[in-house]
Amino acid sequence: MSKILRVNMTNLTAKYEDVPEKYKNMGGRWLTSSIVADEVDPTCHPLGPNNKVVFAQGIVTGSAAPTSARISVGGKSPLTGTIKETNAGTGWGQQVARLGIKAIVVEGQPKEKGKLWGLRITKDGAEFFPADEYVGQGLYQVYPQLFDRFGKKADIMSIGVAGEYQMAMAGICFNDHEGQRPSRYAGRGGMGAVLGSKGLKFIVVDSTGVPASIPIADKALFDQGRKKLTEALRTHAVTKPKGALNTYGTAVLINIMNEAGGLPTRNFASGTFEGAAKIAGEAIFEGNKERLGKELYNHACSPGCIIQCSNTWHNPDGSEQVSCQEYESVWAFGANCGIDSLDVTGELIWLCNDYGVDTIEAGGTIAVAMEAGLAEFGDGQGAIQLMKEISKGTPLGHILGNGAAVTGKVFGVVRVPHVKGQNMPAYSPRAVKGIGVTYATSTMGADHTAGYTIAPEILSVGGKLDAMAVEGKAEVSRNLQAATAFLDSTGHCLFIAFAILDIAEGFEGMVEECNGVLGTNWSGEDAGNIGLDILKTERKFNEAAGFTKVHDRLPEFMKYEPLPPHNTVYDVPDEMLDSVYAF
Amino acid sequence: MSKILRVNMTNLTAKYEDVPEKYKNMGGRWLTSSIVADEVDPTCHPLGPNNKVVFAQGIVTGSAAPTSARISVGGKSPLTGTIKETNAGTGWGQQVARLGIKAIVVEGQPKEKGKLWGLRITKDGAEFFPADEYVGQGLYQVYPQLFDRFGKKADIMSIGVAGEYQMAMAGICFNDHEGQRPSRYAGRGGMGAVLGSKGLKFIVVDSTGVPASIPIADKALFDQGRKKLTEALRTHAVTKPKGALNTYGTAVLINIMNEAGGLPTRNFASGTFEGAAKIAGEAIFEGNKERLGKELYNHACSPGCIIQCSNTWHNPDGSEQVSCQEYESVWAFGANCGIDSLDVTGELIWLCNDYGVDTIEAGGTIAVAMEAGLAEFGDGQGAIQLMKEISKGTPLGHILGNGAAVTGKVFGVVRVPHVKGQNMPAYSPRAVKGIGVTYATSTMGADHTAGYTIAPEILSVGGKLDAMAVEGKAEVSRNLQAATAFLDSTGHCLFIAFAILDIAEGFEGMVEECNGVLGTNWSGEDAGNIGLDILKTERKFNEAAGFTKVHDRLPEFMKYEPLPPHNTVYDVPDEMLDSVYAF
Repeated sequence: MSKILRVNMTNLTAKYEDVPEKYKNMGGRWLTSSIVADEVDPTCHPLGPNNKVVFAQGIVTGSAAPTSARISVGGKSPLTGTIKETNAGTGWGQQVARLGIKAIVVEGQPKEKGKLWGLRITKDGAEFFPADEYVGQGLYQVYPQLFDRFGKKADIMSIGVAGEYQMAMAGICFNDHEGQRPSRYAGRGGMGAVLGSKGLKFIVVDSTGVPASIPIADKALFDQGRKKLTEALRTHAVTKPKGALNTYGTAVLINIMNEAGGLPTRNFASGTFEGAAKIAGEAIFEGNKERLGKELYNHACSPGCIIQCSNTWHNPDGSEQVSCQEYESVWAFGANCGIDSLDVTGELIWLCNDYGVDTIEAGGTIAVAMEAGLAEFGDGQGAIQLMKEISKGTPLGHILGNGAAVTGKVFGVVRVPHVKGQNMPAYSPRAVKGIGVTYATSTMGADHTAGYTIAPEILSVGGKLDAMAVEGKAEVSRNLQAATAFLDSTGHCLFIAFAILDIAEGFEGMVEECNGVLGTNWSGEDAGNIGLDILKTERKFNEAAGFTKVHDRLPEFMKYEPLPPHNTVYDVPDEMLDSVYAF
Repeated sequence: MSKILRVNMTNLTAKYEDVPEKYKNMGGRWLTSSIVADEVDPTCHPLGPNNKVVFAQGIVTGSAAPTSARISVGGKSPLTGTIKETNAGTGWGQQVARLGIKAIVVEGQPKEKGKLWGLRITKDGAEFFPADEYVGQGLYQVYPQLFDRFGKKADIMSIGVAGEYQMAMAGICFNDHEGQRPSRYAGRGGMGAVLGSKGLKFIVVDSTGVPASIPIADKALFDQGRKKLTEALRTHAVTKPKGALNTYGTAVLINIMNEAGGLPTRNFASGTFEGAAKIAGEAIFEGNKERLGKELYNHACSPGCIIQCSNTWHNPDGSEQVSCQEYESVWAFGANCGIDSLDVTGELIWLCNDYGVDTIEAGGTIAVAMEAGLAEFGDGQGAIQLMKEISKGTPLGHILGNGAAVTGKVFGVVRVPHVKGQNMPAYSPRAVKGIGVTYATSTMGADHTAGYTIAPEILSVGGKLDAMAVEGKAEVSRNLQAATAFLDSTGHCLFIAFAILDIAEGFEGMVEECNGVLGTNWSGEDAGNIGLDILKTERKFNEAAGFTKVHDRLPEFMKYEPLPPHNTVYDVPDEMLDSVYAF
């Protein structure tokens, strides 16, 4: 029977507890949000003693299900003040699952202020070790030391200097699969700051000596589902081998969004960027080809992923500069800062990985700082210097490290593209109306992954909608938000959505995998209803934290400032936004 | 007939409009809050084009009513996000009243970013003048230049460098009565930042050539009221000549609150300060006596004030250091920063006046910065250096200039004593439970003046209550909040409350003055109901801006951290806080 590992940082204890009956079938976001809702006072200070950080891998994580290595991290966010779930793809959650741990709950705060600890979990139990010797170092320096110390079979969760400073853009870092790079992030919402406030810098996990898979209640059903999903992923144009994601990575979207006039440029002042082609996925592929002298296809971020969208970017001499240049990261430091160089975006992404911060929030923050006049749009070296302030812990670094909304507040910038304190990702809501509904109403603050309407609005996946139309977008966003909440609970990567939205057997396969692992009998409809239940749980937490429908709005400037090239404002009526939660 | 002067900063126009019928009997806070509620979208960005700043003097301001020179300034606050009314005592509002102007509404934003203007109002109309030559200077330097230019009969409203930077602790400065010092502030809530965002740096007013009093509808009734109120003020121990306020100033409260264990010390970590006696009103009186070689009683901040509580503090050589060392200011930089020197608090207050910032927010911010480790508690020179960052406009200055809550957020400080983003004034709610109800539920964020329960809880004025008791405090706070909302609309200084709470004729006199000016027939009960209506208007605005009862709470740490010397937490139940608005 799997257990909950309760880690108390006040007493430095780590105790295994039975899993309450109501949590038995939960995983991922479903479980983190449920535990947070049950155990955390919604009005607590996110960095105070009463917040908690909950780790929970997905339902099928640790099995042979394809592309299912997601680990969810939940708590009350210091960035948004809402409940938060943020997830990453990494072997870490798979090892936790195999060790029979369903969730790790981190609570309390050390009596000695500023003291930092690590926790190592193996089949023999969980033990603390002092982490002070690693404090203040970049994660590219820290990870090799830890792998030397704990062995290459370990997977490592860490916070960086930003988390040590308790900055609200601090993410939770995990190593990647191939290179043990500090590059896979549960990035959004500042959960790294919460861990920093609890004095927990590392969780090292090594499942050596336990079975290679989690228990499966109905192996035949599980295998049936696994095969259906695998087939769908291997067939769909977006997810198949040498398909769009495997070849160009997620940055394949740069040109597509630019064409659509929805690529936010220079702090959301335009929907097109004249330098888009230079930072697009195609440019990454061609640039690597030129510098390496051969075609390079992408790799898996975590064991068992068959989409394999994670890339590397190389220096002119062929050595690796960074992994990886994802769409959101390239956009955040590229188009959104007016920067058209992959070498510059690569360096900025490397700094994010090194400091332990979310690339979306970081890029959005640099753009707001540029709007405030701290650097010119397009000034790559200026952006790099600003980023370096974060690791120095200067007053400017503390401002920037707390994200775009705080930076805007400190410097009196009105044009801050955020919802509930979280900077908007790489889709302009004035040009793509449905994604604005998701940004506005998500329980997480502005978050494209919460209900990815870009699929039908831009990519003709899961239907085909007019991006500029308003009608019906609340329903589309709600359905996707519910489906995503379920998907985030299974342990699968969101990118399976391309295949399962278009291929019915793929969706069936995902549900059958869960039924196979748990011995449940969920239908597709059940999955949607579970998703709605998760949203309700999260929404209730947020309401108790003081959020109302007034907070489910885009920033005012998007309602009066037309966005080129379409020259449209955000015109989804408030009533339509409010209808998302009318269920 | 009096007019509304509408100042549009987009077009640089200033137009006189008829006063709508519904505003005819309003003044002060009643009028600013009504206009803001009618004209400002509660969801607008406080520094964006859709916020407004409304100036309105009280109903009897500009008449011979005693102690009635208050000018209210309203808008949506960049500090709190709520509606805001903040008022000051100055001849400025009296001159505006005599010029037949009931309110000044400032709206729009200049097309040319960073351009600053002044507006001069005389009997001949209102005209703009460029203010660029005064930008970046301290107000102690600016005011003499303006009096030289516009004459000694003028009164001047100005923002300082903090307002130019659009910092959320920027107040609205008016000159004082005696010395034309930049020392009388509508300080709270950052309305100076809103004026900065509108590019309006000055409003110079000179009523030369118009009658010396506003029109009075019923002179006999007005005179009757005026005499009753004057008599009450001249009789009450707190407000009489050579009484507590006239002798020791408001800082007479330092020893009283320290005795009660409710003087917030070192960022609200204790309720007593070992250096209290050195910064008390008695020490100001004795210190001046020693340095001047004679007893110095206090002076009026504005024409017609018979309480005369404004003081000056003198250097060892007898020259004036600053005016004035008020209780809140002395406490904010004194006990709350662990500083026990009036020379240091005096210098810090002088800097606030020079930069144009609220002393309460500034002191509270320095205390939070000390909590964050930027200086040691008690380090006066450290506090002065931190304050100087504000005028330099450094990143650290921008952090501090945006107040305690932002400073806490940027540096990850959990112990920030604020409500709705506004730092708490000089009464510890864990030791004085009723004032906590006012802090929590005021429409303005933490504000002692909104419902001064200290009167009955500590001073035995208007009744005598146990400060530590919980029972009945919601009702006391509500009644005082309503009475204050009316009082803030009359133009009288809040300090008449000491006399009118204890002496029934004084209260009658205040209402009769209003009836005399307006020709109305209000009873004392009507006054209370008007106050409740004002609160409802403000509360409705705040609800539309996204505030709920969840925001009507004290900071979490006050609920789990016992405050010495009583070692009590804040234990007023949420239900009792919520009952304040059950009317």
